[in-house]
Amino acid sequence: MALKSFIEVGPDSHFPIQNLPFGIFKPEPTSPPRPGVAIGDYVLDLSTISVSGLFEGPFLSGSDCFLQPNLNKFLALGRPAWKEARTTLQNLLSGNIIICKCLNMFNRSFFFLVLLIFIIFLLFYDVADEAKLRDNPNLREKSLVPMSKVEMLLPIAIGDYTDFFSSMHHARNCGIMFRGPENAINPNWFQLPIAYHGRSSSIVVSGTDIIRPRGQGHPSGNSPPYFGPSRKLDFELEMAAVVGPGNELGKPVDVNEAGDHIFGLVLMNDWSARDIQAWEYVPLGPFLGKSFGKAGNLTFPPLEFILADFGFGTTISPWIVTLDALEPFACDAPKQDPQPLPYLAEKISKNYDISLEVQIKPAGQEDSCVVTRSNFNHLYWTVTQQLAHHTINGCNLRPGDLLGTGTISGPEPESYGCLLELTWNGQKSLSLNGTTRKFLEDGDEVVFSGCSKGDGYKVGFGTCSGKILPSP
Amino acid sequence: MALKSFIEVGPDSHFPIQNLPFGIFKPEPTSPPRPGVAIGDYVLDLSTISVSGLFEGPFLSGSDCFLQPNLNKFLALGRPAWKEARTTLQNLLSGNIIICKCLNMFNRSFFFLVLLIFIIFLLFYDVADEAKLRDNPNLREKSLVPMSKVEMLLPIAIGDYTDFFSSMHHARNCGIMFRGPENAINPNWFQLPIAYHGRSSSIVVSGTDIIRPRGQGHPSGNSPPYFGPSRKLDFELEMAAVVGPGNELGKPVDVNEAGDHIFGLVLMNDWSARDIQAWEYVPLGPFLGKSFGKAGNLTFPPLEFILADFGFGTTISPWIVTLDALEPFACDAPKQDPQPLPYLAEKISKNYDISLEVQIKPAGQEDSCVVTRSNFNHLYWTVTQQLAHHTINGCNLRPGDLLGTGTISGPEPESYGCLLELTWNGQKSLSLNGTTRKFLEDGDEVVFSGCSKGDGYKVGFGTCSGKILPSP
Repeated sequence: MALKSFIEVGPDSHFPIQNLPFGIFKPEPTSPPRPGVAIGDYVLDLSTISVSGLFEGPFLSGSDCFLQPNLNKFLALGRPAWKEARTTLQNLLSGNIIICKCLNMFNRSFFFLVLLIFIIFLLFYDVADEAKLRDNPNLREKSLVPMSKVEMLLPIAIGDYTDFFSSMHHARNCGIMFRGPENAINPNWFQLPIAYHGRSSSIVVSGTDIIRPRGQGHPSGNSPPYFGPSRKLDFELEMAAVVGPGNELGKPVDVNEAGDHIFGLVLMNDWSARDIQAWEYVPLGPFLGKSFGKAGNLTFPPLEFILADFGFGTTISPWIVTLDALEPFACDAPKQDPQPLPYLAEKISKNYDISLEVQIKPAGQEDSCVVTRSNFNHLYWTVTQQLAHHTINGCNLRPGDLLGTGTISGPEPESYGCLLELTWNGQKSLSLNGTTRKFLEDGDEVVFSGCSKGDGYKVGFGTCSGKILPSP
Repeated sequence: MALKSFIEVGPDSHFPIQNLPFGIFKPEPTSPPRPGVAIGDYVLDLSTISVSGLFEGPFLSGSDCFLQPNLNKFLALGRPAWKEARTTLQNLLSGNIIICKCLNMFNRSFFFLVLLIFIIFLLFYDVADEAKLRDNPNLREKSLVPMSKVEMLLPIAIGDYTDFFSSMHHARNCGIMFRGPENAINPNWFQLPIAYHGRSSSIVVSGTDIIRPRGQGHPSGNSPPYFGPSRKLDFELEMAAVVGPGNELGKPVDVNEAGDHIFGLVLMNDWSARDIQAWEYVPLGPFLGKSFGKAGNLTFPPLEFILADFGFGTTISPWIVTLDALEPFACDAPKQDPQPLPYLAEKISKNYDISLEVQIKPAGQEDSCVVTRSNFNHLYWTVTQQLAHHTINGCNLRPGDLLGTGTISGPEPESYGCLLELTWNGQKSLSLNGTTRKFLEDGDEVVFSGCSKGDGYKVGFGTCSGKILPSP
């Protein structure tokens, strides 16, 4: 029988005891931010657990990493500390596990005998880990806060944010759109995980409103460039890896050790203003105009440019799901052809089976509408390859750095990861509960969700959402 | 007569009382980092001055901004606090100023009478600001540390680093090199200050060794891509603006108020691996290969790509020279044609006359050799336009953010700001004290310096240097 918590967790919850994602929250609006893990409909306050001396292992006992306003100090401790925290918390939160096991192991006639032995055991031994929280009403009261009452904050102080471009379907779609089918993907794409620097100041937590950005757009004819609110505002369905200990400048991380540098994953929406980027980030020499002409589009740049983060907003989910929690959902990464260079060749190359979904809820409507369904396992380059490549030139990563995957599109049109692809750059309309969309409109709320489905439970990320407000 | 310090400052020093640049230093290897200003051959310890209660103005009295390991808290206070600090420090460090003024104002026969009145004044009033440090041997001893003994550190905790591309000569040279003279500069370049996100983790202080990066290079024929140490390592002569208070997400900064958001400037060397970037950051579709072919170069990308920061190292000078210190060297910015859009149109558009110089000192040689001389006033887009444009989409800037200018090339070949231009992508050799260079070799030390020349004094940045170590 699966591990169970003494806290009631429904089968559809994203946060059973198998998950225990980490975040930063405030129990009251005026209280200082602190680390917590999600369990069912509650947040377990790790500062309280820490102050109560319940982290007794060698890495966390005496550490103040759970008395911080972000998770960076905990992330810097590395995988042994992360595993210790997970084991401790699973012990504290597990409930009637022993009794359940008994029920399976013995037939009912033996049960009462076993129960008697168990009670005697409890009388003669220290209180088991399982009971330290469960059977302490005062500590339960102090440390378990209903999720509906808390305010979630950014879980990490993000030093640097790098956005990769690792879904082949996304790369191919953009390539076809702007260069034509013959040269859809550049040869270097298959040799290394292409990446761009993003801006960390404008990364916000789920639920933060996004103000429609203003900027310059492509001029028509001889008139000056357009200036005003973006008319091609888009979401990008991404996930991001949260970096753990990191490395020193000049000392690359081996690809087979890269997993130890990734604490976990978050959902990420890298909002994009397609029209502004198209003008700002492009070499628009005539020779390029001509090439675009072949693809039937004179105003758009090669795909590599459309991906540059524009710095007006990137939203992440508040909960970081650890790689340890995702391990049961590991699956083979796609076979890579050509074979990657030795520094990118992994002994075990894995993805994770995480179902992803995007819903849009137009202003004033009751219901949201699913616009796409994709999966993390569509990535061509793994997160460990991304991390190893990032450091191969000697670049240093720091705890709390974020590595975005890039838009995660699947092979089918219903699994494309952004409106640019879903509406083929506005050539088609997307039907949405009786209304239509080519790009996002003011008042639209975009909600990402993601989860892995286990046997009778889910390991999920909750949601990552943001609502578009008009330009000022 | 010019303002003078009671500390002896030679006419060639970069750090007279007119300058007072801010940095972070350690007086002893084991002491904690603290803010200081450079004065002649000394560093004035601002933590000591602060603890002694000598910052008495409304913004700094009682503030702990000079008891921090970086300048970010001071930067967040804004221009009124910066001006107050400057005035206080100039008062504390000025010496015989009052007597000198007397000598000018009156003829010598009145001088002794005035001196008498002055002495009586001193007897009846508090010790003047000028004397509080000068005449306090104990405080002088504690707060003035010989520059030769200190260790300089990064002056700021850098949240985000953006690199602009604001020298027209640099843009034109790269354009001619990779696209031919007809389409040297893209039309969007003249409409807005083009920029790229850089990586902040790999920004290091002057004097830090730079390890030659490894990475993938362009494959030849059907063989896999080259992998190994960069063979086209370059410097980029840049400066960078250090952001002060910053702005909230969604609230752009007006271009005419942008100056209040810039604390000062540093020298910056944005080291580049031309061969690795060329392969990694390029759309290399056949249509582009063809276009390059026209420019006589099949392996290089359009200029916009060569500028992407690669994250293995960016060096800045330890001293931030304030805009207040540079104000006497302000000059008109170049006339912009076409006229910029209203949000970029400045009432007063200014550059600064800062002479820049790059020297290379090959391993084992006694002397370094000047390889280029340029000037900050070659920038087409001003730093205030850069800042305003950066925020126009709602992007937030934070105290300590860095805005690089991009390579600053002048119009003449002797004023080009990088080896790529100086050797025309390796087509020519640069003569260097009897040896030659196309790109940087292991052991080369690259030293930037910069200063503005006043009447009998200089306002300078000191140096920004780094030595190339071989790949591991």
